[in-house]
Amino acid sequence: MRTGTNHLFIPGPTNVPEDVRMAMNVPMQDQRGPDFGAFTLSILADLKKVFRTTTGQVMLFPGSGTGAWEAAITNTLNPGDRVLMARHGQFSTLWAEMATRLGLTVDVIDIAWGAGAPVNEFMRKLAADRKGEIKAVFVTHNETATGVTSDIAAVRRALDDCFHDALLFVDGVSSVGSIDFRMDDWGVDLAVTGSQKGLMCPAGLGILGVSQKAMKASETSTMRRAYFEFRDFKQTVETGYFPYTPPTQILHGMRRALDRINAEGLDNVLARHARLAEGVRRAVAAWGLSPCAEHPSLASNTVTAIRVPDGVDARDVIRIGYERYNTSFGSGLSRLAGKVFRIGHLGDLNEGMCLTAIAVAEMALVEAGADIEFGSGVAAAQAWYAQGRTAEAALRMAAE
Amino acid sequence: MRTGTNHLFIPGPTNVPEDVRMAMNVPMQDQRGPDFGAFTLSILADLKKVFRTTTGQVMLFPGSGTGAWEAAITNTLNPGDRVLMARHGQFSTLWAEMATRLGLTVDVIDIAWGAGAPVNEFMRKLAADRKGEIKAVFVTHNETATGVTSDIAAVRRALDDCFHDALLFVDGVSSVGSIDFRMDDWGVDLAVTGSQKGLMCPAGLGILGVSQKAMKASETSTMRRAYFEFRDFKQTVETGYFPYTPPTQILHGMRRALDRINAEGLDNVLARHARLAEGVRRAVAAWGLSPCAEHPSLASNTVTAIRVPDGVDARDVIRIGYERYNTSFGSGLSRLAGKVFRIGHLGDLNEGMCLTAIAVAEMALVEAGADIEFGSGVAAAQAWYAQGRTAEAALRMAAE
Amino acid sequence: MRTGTNHLFIPGPTNVPEDVRMAMNVPMQDQRGPDFGAFTLSILADLKKVFRTTTGQVMLFPGSGTGAWEAAITNTLNPGDRVLMARHGQFSTLWAEMATRLGLTVDVIDIAWGAGAPVNEFMRKLAADRKGEIKAVFVTHNETATGVTSDIAAVRRALDDCFHDALLFVDGVSSVGSIDFRMDDWGVDLAVTGSQKGLMCPAGLGILGVSQKAMKASETSTMRRAYFEFRDFKQTVETGYFPYTPPTQILHGMRRALDRINAEGLDNVLARHARLAEGVRRAVAAWGLSPCAEHPSLASNTVTAIRVPDGVDARDVIRIGYERYNTSFGSGLSRLAGKVFRIGHLGDLNEGMCLTAIAVAEMALVEAGADIEFGSGVAAAQAWYAQGRTAEAALRMAAE
Amino acid sequence: MRTGTNHLFIPGPTNVPEDVRMAMNVPMQDQRGPDFGAFTLSILADLKKVFRTTTGQVMLFPGSGTGAWEAAITNTLNPGDRVLMARHGQFSTLWAEMATRLGLTVDVIDIAWGAGAPVNEFMRKLAADRKGEIKAVFVTHNETATGVTSDIAAVRRALDDCFHDALLFVDGVSSVGSIDFRMDDWGVDLAVTGSQKGLMCPAGLGILGVSQKAMKASETSTMRRAYFEFRDFKQTVETGYFPYTPPTQILHGMRRALDRINAEGLDNVLARHARLAEGVRRAVAAWGLSPCAEHPSLASNTVTAIRVPDGVDARDVIRIGYERYNTSFGSGLSRLAGKVFRIGHLGDLNEGMCLTAIAVAEMALVEAGADIEFGSGVAAAQAWYAQGRTAEAALRMAAE
Repeated sequence: MRTGTNHLFIPGPTNVPEDVRMAMNVPMQDQRGPDFGAFTLSILADLKKVFRTTTGQVMLFPGSGTGAWEAAITNTLNPGDRVLMARHGQFSTLWAEMATRLGLTVDVIDIAWGAGAPVNEFMRKLAADRKGEIKAVFVTHNETATGVTSDIAAVRRALDDCFHDALLFVDGVSSVGSIDFRMDDWGVDLAVTGSQKGLMCPAGLGILGVSQKAMKASETSTMRRAYFEFRDFKQTVETGYFPYTPPTQILHGMRRALDRINAEGLDNVLARHARLAEGVRRAVAAWGLSPCAEHPSLASNTVTAIRVPDGVDARDVIRIGYERYNTSFGSGLSRLAGKVFRIGHLGDLNEGMCLTAIAVAEMALVEAGADIEFGSGVAAAQAWYAQGRTAEAALRMAAE
Repeated sequence: MRTGTNHLFIPGPTNVPEDVRMAMNVPMQDQRGPDFGAFTLSILADLKKVFRTTTGQVMLFPGSGTGAWEAAITNTLNPGDRVLMARHGQFSTLWAEMATRLGLTVDVIDIAWGAGAPVNEFMRKLAADRKGEIKAVFVTHNETATGVTSDIAAVRRALDDCFHDALLFVDGVSSVGSIDFRMDDWGVDLAVTGSQKGLMCPAGLGILGVSQKAMKASETSTMRRAYFEFRDFKQTVETGYFPYTPPTQILHGMRRALDRINAEGLDNVLARHARLAEGVRRAVAAWGLSPCAEHPSLASNTVTAIRVPDGVDARDVIRIGYERYNTSFGSGLSRLAGKVFRIGHLGDLNEGMCLTAIAVAEMALVEAGADIEFGSGVAAAQAWYAQGRTAEAALRMAAE
Repeated sequence: MRTGTNHLFIPGPTNVPEDVRMAMNVPMQDQRGPDFGAFTLSILADLKKVFRTTTGQVMLFPGSGTGAWEAAITNTLNPGDRVLMARHGQFSTLWAEMATRLGLTVDVIDIAWGAGAPVNEFMRKLAADRKGEIKAVFVTHNETATGVTSDIAAVRRALDDCFHDALLFVDGVSSVGSIDFRMDDWGVDLAVTGSQKGLMCPAGLGILGVSQKAMKASETSTMRRAYFEFRDFKQTVETGYFPYTPPTQILHGMRRALDRINAEGLDNVLARHARLAEGVRRAVAAWGLSPCAEHPSLASNTVTAIRVPDGVDARDVIRIGYERYNTSFGSGLSRLAGKVFRIGHLGDLNEGMCLTAIAVAEMALVEAGADIEFGSGVAAAQAWYAQGRTAEAALRMAAE
Repeated sequence: MRTGTNHLFIPGPTNVPEDVRMAMNVPMQDQRGPDFGAFTLSILADLKKVFRTTTGQVMLFPGSGTGAWEAAITNTLNPGDRVLMARHGQFSTLWAEMATRLGLTVDVIDIAWGAGAPVNEFMRKLAADRKGEIKAVFVTHNETATGVTSDIAAVRRALDDCFHDALLFVDGVSSVGSIDFRMDDWGVDLAVTGSQKGLMCPAGLGILGVSQKAMKASETSTMRRAYFEFRDFKQTVETGYFPYTPPTQILHGMRRALDRINAEGLDNVLARHARLAEGVRRAVAAWGLSPCAEHPSLASNTVTAIRVPDGVDARDVIRIGYERYNTSFGSGLSRLAGKVFRIGHLGDLNEGMCLTAIAVAEMALVEAGADIEFGSGVAAAQAWYAQGRTAEAALRMAAE
């Protein structure tokens, strides 16, 4: 018999705010009713702001982020096209596998799980591609498996410096809405995210930002697709309707989640993620443990993957958190299984919640055999959160 | 300012029962948590009962029914395969279009919108197919656009009588769970449905019943697919987990909806749909109007498409219902636009709700210019519902 | 196993609108938190508008309307005080009983259940009361048991014409917010209502409108009271806080319900009740049955009590509605048991819902043995609702 | 703009568990419907188990705990009756004031706010009362203002040792369901609680346990009462119905809350409260601060009142918690204002939540000027919670 709050610190699905939950708990409605169009259009308009795009087109597909990946590929590339990407975590690995399955020629650069996107290596390959055979570069903005955020602006610069015309695909599933993401500034052609991370809704909606260049590519792309056809979506959504039965419930949640983001201000949302994440990182340092991210500059503001000490099984940490303390941490995926546990710190979050995560992690680590001092991580985070107050006060006053 | 219940009589998304709504309104959870597997498996087991299959595999894909259609095709057929189907309504038309897009050779039989699946014509074509070029027959069990239910058992007999090995695809989106559907008895290989019709949940989950024969075909099928890959689903779901982030919310609703179906008894659910639908049909007859279905034997128990009198625009009927009476009817789709309005009568329904639909329809028809006598349809339905009581009492007592 | 909407046509608790339900489904909060005061004050301000008072004080007591009755009495009267009232239904009977229990000398006028407040008789008694022994006149604005609305303005005139100083107590439980109620214009001193009728919330909050005259009386009243003490409420509520733990959940619902009333406009809300009620009355007339109200001018816009034909037991009508049609009608109370069933038509309601009530009542009446023609009442109501459209269109356009 | 969980650590209303919230979010229903009686009776039966009474009668009154206090008094005592009680906190003070208002002669013993019920002093007074003038002894089981739990068994022994016949009234508002409470064993005659504490529901329902002796007293009691009349309740509730409109919503919540208590096991619920409370107390000790309770044996398992150091204003601690950390602590009431802040730790709670409370309290204390070491209290609580695991494992296994 579990009692009390189920403390959820996986890197998604994230905690859905109360008012978003309430907004979703509505009776079914006619998705062809006369008011529905304006409702949809307001969501798309606000999602554009979250992607920071004015010229791109936002698309919604019932499905998961994986489905949105597929939509991005099948609508804009052609069978056999060569794409360039790095494999440095579970999600970049799965993306490469999908690209292969869908018939692309995938030029993979394998680097350490914990490294960021290998911009120099990309640059070298792009520069060498005189014939323009590379049709797209795929970058995982935030590797959820390792807690690594890569530098998309640098990849854009690499493309530009090489005068290379490849499309830039970015997996922003665990970054959009939580980590600075600039679709237009960075020239992202296909930005992929889902409803269940920074957008604070349940899973069930794949979301795409599509540049005009990508829209153009979709007109001639010859890959087979039907459900995920951009053209169908674009045609019907002009008036706010869908080519399929939309998940109206999640759309209502999305509307409210976007209201929240607008009320807090996107910049404030990003600053909050940065501040809260730093507290978690200081706790990890106070424990004497290392994050999976190879360098502080790569550390993600949405998830921290923590290497457990030798002799400790990270699966025990997670199991103890779940069974004894009603707390869910993210597990180490694939080759990181047992070596890493992850604290998701994105979406609807505050200091108290991060301190809960840290305090419970300390207990679970100790009970799993780690030599950690109780309260040490908590104290480090508290010192940071308290310190941050003065500076933040000014910001907050301005925002409210 | 709208007041009172929003009366929803579209043929899906259907009214979600209160307890299903409540079951969905839960905080997010770790879909990799240790309890999650058993939860998923219980849903799959109960869905098999709804499909009436013991040997088939049920699969769930976040997405719409359209997505499930695509999954069925891309996993079991090969590029260029010839498939046989009829076009007799909007949904069969869209299905044929999808098949073409995905690279199949579609052998379409165009018949009247209002006709049922042309079993004799199928038979003739199958018999003529000596080389076994037809790889699949696609049948729309319940054409939601016309309110026509086709005879799947007869199609199976046609295949068997011809000793034809084609896969049998059935679109059961608006029939499974509401109209008798027998996957094993009828030898259905790919049964497609969605969460938002007879299963009384919001839209967002495509559901497939896959026969062992279809599973076998999927091992060699060479169509490109990734998100909808059967193999991925099958592997992870054996222990109750998903290859993607599942929409846990809808799964909780589905669990409760299945509890409801189990409590009422699937046979009773089907009998209730038949009884309530007959009341609506009697109302239509009392108005002197015709259903879209060409013959009473084709009349659907989940939706009735009603032809409005000459000089009346069905769009006005729908608009008046919506604007003045807070009531949503289904519109005439494509070539039926303006000629037909539809009353959806499936899912969580009772006599009072059907009488509401009929009474409001009478007002909307009259205000749109039809020469209908107030109360005439209501009286016809009441007489039927009241008459049905005695017979039903015995059934009900047995069931409770 | 019940399926579909539970059709609720009791005269309260009434159907709670979806958004009100959602507004109530919030986590607990600190009712002493800094934001709470403004929240409470906004509710009180809007309730004053519903009571149509600018000078009165609105008070809220966790409890039922019965509790609010007690609060009104014990705060303003003295032991042994003589009060004047009529007994013409179950609720006026209970009120008289309470007054006696609390130690008042109750001067009761017994009239027919179905009659309105006996203004002339009141006048006669007040005129005869030379010594001013009558300290209060109690009037039931809307007798929920009989569906009779009395003329409060006339009672006020009677008091004024006699230059009588008695306090005017009005039971507005089933009228405030649904039937025109004018606390200031009518000089009502103690107006009592509850959360669960026209205010569209669940039961649990007794609501009082207290005139300045009544506030003054409360300063010297010597009846024993503690929980319901006006002074405690008045003192703490000045800043929006409560002398007890308030039911924050219902307060959130009330806030939203008042938003709805403000959005529709109180005058429009009252007009809607009048229009919908008239449809129900026309159905009753079409059935050839009589309302309990003795004269059309007394007919309540919130509830219609219907006399069943001889030989029919109203309890059967109610039972059949409930068991067979998932529909709740109000029962005949006390001496009306078996002779009357009631259709509540107040709160969040529309035409379709009234037609449902009528259509199901027809079935239940027939199945209980009444000789009623199916559809007859429905048709009469439809004709009225349709006719009312033109006139209303102008009103509505003005309102929106 | 507040983000993340609103951390609620006031000593009530407590956090309502998710499933209880969901259970309450139901449409209105007919509280006179045929199924309603059994529903009510199941709640009363389970509440008896929580009160640990087999011979007593449980009663429910829409209202707050204050209302239930009044019901207890007015139904069983007579005007002018002498009652014995101690004043040692805000709630015992309010209770004494109510008794006076209602016309009792209150024999008050004033002791320190932080002391427990003065059993010896009670004993002395009872022994001296040769004429049996003391009609009742009032004891506050758990003084919510000071976090002090008194020894009711000892008070009962005092009464018995004196062969005194006074009724024993116990305020169990913040103890019943969270701290061991034994109505029958302790011979409690009137036990008062509310829905919003250990019973994990919103405020709105006053709950009484009434002994047979008290029931008998109510037959002859001459205090004025109406709304709170025991006889009315007893008569109608025999079949599960109410003499007033019950708050059905809270009743549904109560049903689910009782299901939770039954599933966890009342003994386990109490053990959990004891264990979690001890962690909070160890944190307070680690900070070098003192609880309000004068002696460890008096420390409440539901709330800890913490004295802040000289020079620190407890109101600042509370304000900082609320404004900066979205956390609500209880304030110091009346004479404790500014000197004390309170951490409520009752109801639906777990270790992570207590650690959150402690961690946020540390930050708020430090920011309010206290010289507290970050993490010190957290570490002390962690050490206790972790240590408790082994012993508890056996218990838990037995329970599940």
